[in-house]
Amino acid sequence: MIKVGIVGGTGYTGVELLRLLAGHKGVKVHAVTSRKEAGMPVADMFPSLRGWVDVAFSTPEEADLKSCDVVFFATPHGVAMAQAPELLAAGVKVIDLAADFRLKDPAEFQKWYAMEHSCTDLLAEAVYGLAEVNREQIKSARLIGMAGCYPTSVQLGLLPLLEGGKQLIETNTLIADCKSGVSGAGRKAEVGTLFSEAGDNFKAYGVKGHRHSPEINQGLSAIHGAPVSLTFVPHLTPMIRGIHSTIYARIKPEGRDTDFQKLFEERFVDERFVDVLPAGSCPETRSVRGSNIARIAVHRPGNGDLLVILVVEDNLVKGASGQAVQVMNLMFGLPESQGLEVVPLLP
Amino acid sequence: MIKVGIVGGTGYTGVELLRLLAGHKGVKVHAVTSRKEAGMPVADMFPSLRGWVDVAFSTPEEADLKSCDVVFFATPHGVAMAQAPELLAAGVKVIDLAADFRLKDPAEFQKWYAMEHSCTDLLAEAVYGLAEVNREQIKSARLIGMAGCYPTSVQLGLLPLLEGGKQLIETNTLIADCKSGVSGAGRKAEVGTLFSEAGDNFKAYGVKGHRHSPEINQGLSAIHGAPVSLTFVPHLTPMIRGIHSTIYARIKPEGRDTDFQKLFEERFVDERFVDVLPAGSCPETRSVRGSNIARIAVHRPGNGDLLVILVVEDNLVKGASGQAVQVMNLMFGLPESQGLEVVPLLP
Amino acid sequence: MIKVGIVGGTGYTGVELLRLLAGHKGVKVHAVTSRKEAGMPVADMFPSLRGWVDVAFSTPEEADLKSCDVVFFATPHGVAMAQAPELLAAGVKVIDLAADFRLKDPAEFQKWYAMEHSCTDLLAEAVYGLAEVNREQIKSARLIGMAGCYPTSVQLGLLPLLEGGKQLIETNTLIADCKSGVSGAGRKAEVGTLFSEAGDNFKAYGVKGHRHSPEINQGLSAIHGAPVSLTFVPHLTPMIRGIHSTIYARIKPEGRDTDFQKLFEERFVDERFVDVLPAGSCPETRSVRGSNIARIAVHRPGNGDLLVILVVEDNLVKGASGQAVQVMNLMFGLPESQGLEVVPLLP
Amino acid sequence: MIKVGIVGGTGYTGVELLRLLAGHKGVKVHAVTSRKEAGMPVADMFPSLRGWVDVAFSTPEEADLKSCDVVFFATPHGVAMAQAPELLAAGVKVIDLAADFRLKDPAEFQKWYAMEHSCTDLLAEAVYGLAEVNREQIKSARLIGMAGCYPTSVQLGLLPLLEGGKQLIETNTLIADCKSGVSGAGRKAEVGTLFSEAGDNFKAYGVKGHRHSPEINQGLSAIHGAPVSLTFVPHLTPMIRGIHSTIYARIKPEGRDTDFQKLFEERFVDERFVDVLPAGSCPETRSVRGSNIARIAVHRPGNGDLLVILVVEDNLVKGASGQAVQVMNLMFGLPESQGLEVVPLLP
Repeated sequence: MIKVGIVGGTGYTGVELLRLLAGHKGVKVHAVTSRKEAGMPVADMFPSLRGWVDVAFSTPEEADLKSCDVVFFATPHGVAMAQAPELLAAGVKVIDLAADFRLKDPAEFQKWYAMEHSCTDLLAEAVYGLAEVNREQIKSARLIGMAGCYPTSVQLGLLPLLEGGKQLIETNTLIADCKSGVSGAGRKAEVGTLFSEAGDNFKAYGVKGHRHSPEINQGLSAIHGAPVSLTFVPHLTPMIRGIHSTIYARIKPEGRDTDFQKLFEERFVDERFVDVLPAGSCPETRSVRGSNIARIAVHRPGNGDLLVILVVEDNLVKGASGQAVQVMNLMFGLPESQGLEVVPLLP
Repeated sequence: MIKVGIVGGTGYTGVELLRLLAGHKGVKVHAVTSRKEAGMPVADMFPSLRGWVDVAFSTPEEADLKSCDVVFFATPHGVAMAQAPELLAAGVKVIDLAADFRLKDPAEFQKWYAMEHSCTDLLAEAVYGLAEVNREQIKSARLIGMAGCYPTSVQLGLLPLLEGGKQLIETNTLIADCKSGVSGAGRKAEVGTLFSEAGDNFKAYGVKGHRHSPEINQGLSAIHGAPVSLTFVPHLTPMIRGIHSTIYARIKPEGRDTDFQKLFEERFVDERFVDVLPAGSCPETRSVRGSNIARIAVHRPGNGDLLVILVVEDNLVKGASGQAVQVMNLMFGLPESQGLEVVPLLP
Repeated sequence: MIKVGIVGGTGYTGVELLRLLAGHKGVKVHAVTSRKEAGMPVADMFPSLRGWVDVAFSTPEEADLKSCDVVFFATPHGVAMAQAPELLAAGVKVIDLAADFRLKDPAEFQKWYAMEHSCTDLLAEAVYGLAEVNREQIKSARLIGMAGCYPTSVQLGLLPLLEGGKQLIETNTLIADCKSGVSGAGRKAEVGTLFSEAGDNFKAYGVKGHRHSPEINQGLSAIHGAPVSLTFVPHLTPMIRGIHSTIYARIKPEGRDTDFQKLFEERFVDERFVDVLPAGSCPETRSVRGSNIARIAVHRPGNGDLLVILVVEDNLVKGASGQAVQVMNLMFGLPESQGLEVVPLLP
Repeated sequence: MIKVGIVGGTGYTGVELLRLLAGHKGVKVHAVTSRKEAGMPVADMFPSLRGWVDVAFSTPEEADLKSCDVVFFATPHGVAMAQAPELLAAGVKVIDLAADFRLKDPAEFQKWYAMEHSCTDLLAEAVYGLAEVNREQIKSARLIGMAGCYPTSVQLGLLPLLEGGKQLIETNTLIADCKSGVSGAGRKAEVGTLFSEAGDNFKAYGVKGHRHSPEINQGLSAIHGAPVSLTFVPHLTPMIRGIHSTIYARIKPEGRDTDFQKLFEERFVDERFVDVLPAGSCPETRSVRGSNIARIAVHRPGNGDLLVILVVEDNLVKGASGQAVQVMNLMFGLPESQGLEVVPLLP
């Protein structure tokens, strides 16, 4: 049994990790830390876990995280980089669900997250936690910076088109028009995500620039092996879970004869957590609610030169905690889908 | 033109006052105070008001509220009682949408609102702002404690049955099972009213005791002229606006032959803002969305001894700001429905 | 492996059965019938099942339901009673999720469902599918009439108080004020349950009389061993899944010294699917979303003579398909919770 | 008083016309036809109108529409073209909210609406009902084909950029990623728009081709005076009202020095129903809920060559019935905003 620690169990990615790990036969949750809630049973805060999770929040001191095999950080940005060096030194693997180890360039990190990076020496070692792209490196990694929710959907949607320097689409006119459920904003008390503010309402935000932009462009460029530039426009939609990314890509003349449906199907045929829908389909976010699956459809309206790629995922599962469990499974040699065979909840 | 001041324009009752007053031909909004937002145009915070409201938030000092004819307090509990004496002394009428002047007994106020009442001498003078009950006193009042959202619906639903000592129903087994939209909790940043917490969810709260219980019992007892005791159980329902109260009353033997439908219709026939539905109807909260109307239906299942009274209102209009405008109209001799002829928004 | 047939797989209880059975190691879904959709893979209609369910809809003729060990009817009322006799004669067990075998009195059935009962001889044999009440009879039953969604919640909430003739509460003034998510109305195309009609709205319905009333009263009377009469008022609330029942019971003088919290805890201590919350709690529907658990809290406001019992369940799981799987497990000697250890989805 | 007839008052555009006309001092609703509901008071079907609308549905025969000054068709496609010739011949003005008179090319109409056009001779005369584009023609028109909901938002968002042959943006790579609330699908009983299907869910639809595509391209080309080609991808979002269009336009080299904020502000400065937000804003759909305003923001991320234009409108008001009243006002020489000064409902 893998001994798991969770730092920051009071947010949505934390409770989601607990939901998934409660059904995972290969792990034991040793500790969930929260200085503020120390002593309170986790299931008192999240009654959905009553009967499945019997651990209580503990202080970091009590938690003895160094005795764990792996520690997940389900924390705000900045926490993981403060604690990771010591844990790694103690032989503990670290999986950060926040952004501390996503961006390779510390200057970019500082620009977007308004804090200096405290362990830049680890940035090169950290593996970007997107299994469909970096599976082999993940298997042998000590430190993972999990892919963000939006970036996961956008990278999966463009992977077959860009991978290995393919010259199928223009790489400087890409657009991702993304829509997220409100849980993507976390469990912080803020006016903008109150029910009466975010309900029955739709809006764009971060049009000038969003933290996920540099991550997406870094990831796509790495996939492509050359610079890729994408305009990212996120929107808030009145649902709890789910991301829907609508990606627009201009086909290059040399890509015009491509069978894009086949390209996508073949690329993902062996991926347990990526499902390419039949031609003509439009995926619904609810078709992946609660599950680690991303579903993708590829359209070419009027058989013209514009590809429209539709990707849905559950932002808290494939976009966060589920994918983190997938990565943990890879790191410890477990079956990649262990604990993740949860059938989506529809309706 | 009546010169209006609003203290606390950043919450839902404040913005709702502004919406309604923007369409009221007889008033001019002189000032909206918010120390925190002073200088910001109100329509920057609430873009829905762009083109209709051009006032900016001001500090209390700039606002010169003493020059107003009437000041509304759309503030947390405790603010109005601190400022009312000085305004009244200056000849300004005061309408408090919070609870400072609802309860007649200062000990009750202290018990439920956890603060000492600072101007108990005004409690006797303050008129309870429920026009259908206290119309005449309101007309000559200087100081109004507006009825709360839940209490308005419950009192309207029981008014024809209890008024003037009527002996139609048991007065010690009354139950009000009430359901409110989330805007009733206000625009404060709190975890419990986040979209991802309150959405797709239903729960009771305050079962042990809710601040509106003493207000309801005080109001019903005043209406009845004798003690009335009601068990009040509020619930939170995943919609923005609306209260639905389901009221259960046991018919006394002497009430058994009453035509309750007729009783309700006759009682409210001249009330512009109370609509008794045809027998057999079930009112929907959306049928009053955005309007000052309360709609009521009376049922007697199986022609037995239990009355089931259904009342819907928009908690921000008839339950708060609309009713406050109705009261203001009465205080200044304007037509009672001026500015309030807003057709409900459905769907 | 138990061989399962499902009649009517295109509604919500059908797809929910498929979701749960997809994770059940002891069964194989042999056929899902739908004359209209015959030939279409089930996962084409419900993409949430892609990767987990690979069966296609079949005609009743192709389905060869007589070769099954058990057949679930997830159909409108009237279908099961037409087919059950033949299946039972072939040695197949039958579990009806509709109302054909709930009411013991064929006249009552005809009154509420507006059709004559076609196999009244089976009514006596049919066991009412509420495991917490009828566990032993279920184990040896051939034919089950599953408890309805509302009746399940109300009966569980009153079980400790009424069981075996207990004299703790008045049995002729009971009230159940129940609130259901919209999925309770099924997947039929109807105006009243459109998003734009049922969204951001709250209403009561069926106040004059609802089909679940006779079922509730029959069930409670059976539990109590004497007539029980309850007024049932259902409401529609803008969420997809979940029922919240608020039950009001008057304590008899002889019940006044009872420790109700303890009574409930002890009654359900061995029930895997009933969770009594700590004193003072208010259960949320989302705390059971997607799971077979019912959570219950007992309140006695002001330590008076009125009990307020709060019960939440997922109407499609404990209120329908989950409970049907629980019953199937009992009928076939499997662990009662097999396939049902699904952690609730929150948020 | 203008005498108004409404054909088809049982759908959302019909009830919305009634809501707005109830507050319009210059008109009298003479008849609302519905063969199916003839005799029923309109307010029985839509209780929101109780107290404001006292007309009953009538048969077309009873309605005597030829005696009206103007008849609105709030009907499915195909109804208006069957009745318009006779009404026009009788001197009645006709405003069709459906698509019968939108497309100028009857072949296009037949292709997208699967029916032959029955009065192609009227297509040339019919004026496209988008006041901001065709104000003068509308004033003297007898027959209006109202702009569709999506097309209104897209055309307003591109108007300042394309009008009169301007060479600011590429006209063959335009993209409109549009999101609509569910009321856009109408009040028909259909599975796809049930609360339990469309709630807590997000999806694209019609990616292959949507009826509004030819309308948008026809409209933009007319505005531009040269062919314009736009890729239109609509999405369904779980809210009742509102459209949010995110429009992507590539700036031409000759457009690079344009002050787009100023361009938009100047273009719409005199338009009562188009509000250009300050630079950097993101409009919310709720900021126009219930009102005839469209709000627009223009972004140029990273000061690059891609414009991102955000447009919100209430699909039932500016996207349908409100705009139809605006057009009626123009046709009859009334103030353009009469009856339309309804403040948006927020929250």
